Amino acid sequence: MQLYNYFRSSASFRVRIALQVKGLAYDYVPVHLVKGEHQAPGYAGRMGDALVPALATDDGALLSQSLAIIEYLDETHPAPPLLPAQALARARVRALAQMVACEIHPLNNLRVLKYLVRDLKVDEDAKNAWYHHWTRKGLEAFERQLALLAQERAAQGLPPSVLCWGDAPTLADCCLVPQIFNARRFNVRLDGLPLTLGAFDACMALPAFQQAQPSACPDAEA
Amino acid sequence: MQLYNYFRSSASFRVRIALQVKGLAYDYVPVHLVKGEHQAPGYAGRMGDALVPALATDDGALLSQSLAIIEYLDETHPAPPLLPAQALARARVRALAQMVACEIHPLNNLRVLKYLVRDLKVDEDAKNAWYHHWTRKGLEAFERQLALLAQERAAQGLPPSVLCWGDAPTLADCCLVPQIFNARRFNVRLDGLPLTLGAFDACMALPAFQQAQPSACPDAEA
Repeated sequence: MQLYNYFRSSASFRVRIALQVKGLAYDYVPVHLVKGEHQAPGYAGRMGDALVPALATDDGALLSQSLAIIEYLDETHPAPPLLPAQALARARVRALAQMVACEIHPLNNLRVLKYLVRDLKVDEDAKNAWYHHWTRKGLEAFERQLALLAQERAAQGLPPSVLCWGDAPTLADCCLVPQIFNARRFNVRLDGLPLTLGAFDACMALPAFQQAQPSACPDAEA
Repeated sequence: MQLYNYFRSSASFRVRIALQVKGLAYDYVPVHLVKGEHQAPGYAGRMGDALVPALATDDGALLSQSLAIIEYLDETHPAPPLLPAQALARARVRALAQMVACEIHPLNNLRVLKYLVRDLKVDEDAKNAWYHHWTRKGLEAFERQLALLAQERAAQGLPPSVLCWGDAPTLADCCLVPQIFNARRFNVRLDGLPLTLGAFDACMALPAFQQAQPSACPDAEA
């Protein structure tokens, strides 16, 4: 497998975590987003949306969209699983992942920030306020959801979660961890989020998450 | 089951389609987003993100995030399936769904448009340009992806798709159709998207999609 990747891309980071958790070997192919390498015809012509990450399978298919890639990896390499076995628990984990992937990250990626500055003539302070607003609001919702899930688990007689859901990495952790990295890089206030940061810290104590982090990537920059 | 819903919400519409395709009965509970009913404590206190849709299961769990809800319905009520059987095809369908749910819709929902106007003091024309930009760009990517998938299917000896993938509704159709309704409401240019609009028209010829559309909802307004 080949992973088309940019060290600082949150969506790329999600897939790197999944690959590391599953212990799958892959070739890392850097695609420099800031230099626009994702728009080169040799890359952009191979998929509809020309984003990173993309995963080239050993059969020659090129997969896009990080959550779809991770579910594909989970279906083709089931152990260790990144989703729980039971339908309700799977829905809980997927919803947490989507709270990041559909509510926070789309508003804060590079092309959106560029549009704010270039097309809407938004100044640096307003751009940062936008970033902080959606990230903070999204993480507060994530924290409330973790609190509700803690009650639900207790009512079901399940032990408290160590990571986002239970004590083994899931799709939700694959999404949360890169978002926290990103929030810290932009100095978003992270106080008052004990469950969320507890899950983050527990993830980052695991080798798979350390090995997947941006600073460990071949194309990492200072 | 109870579906907390707003007739004009794209994400709500996705779940209504899934329920209709599967022939599942549900109680429709209107939550008026423009009146802020989703922020009332009785609703907002029950889930982290206080958005619509939310699905209350017969076991009393309240599920959020439309794609997670649809996958839950697909796992608990497998026939007819909303995802293909094979892993690669599933990845293709999920990626199409996410091209709408992660790349287009998050930039254009009500709370984002409100922020543009209220906080960034963007005028009506610039707000509309923002909406058109992300929708058009996202649908063009969707069209390119459908063209690539048509080639992939041909190489595999599969018949051309009638809907987004194959000839039966999938998660991708659940996402595409509401996005096209939304695009039309905001007068987004839809020329040059033959595969995308072909899939849309084929969906809308099916009773399940007609029954799920906004104008058929109990809370529909003119």
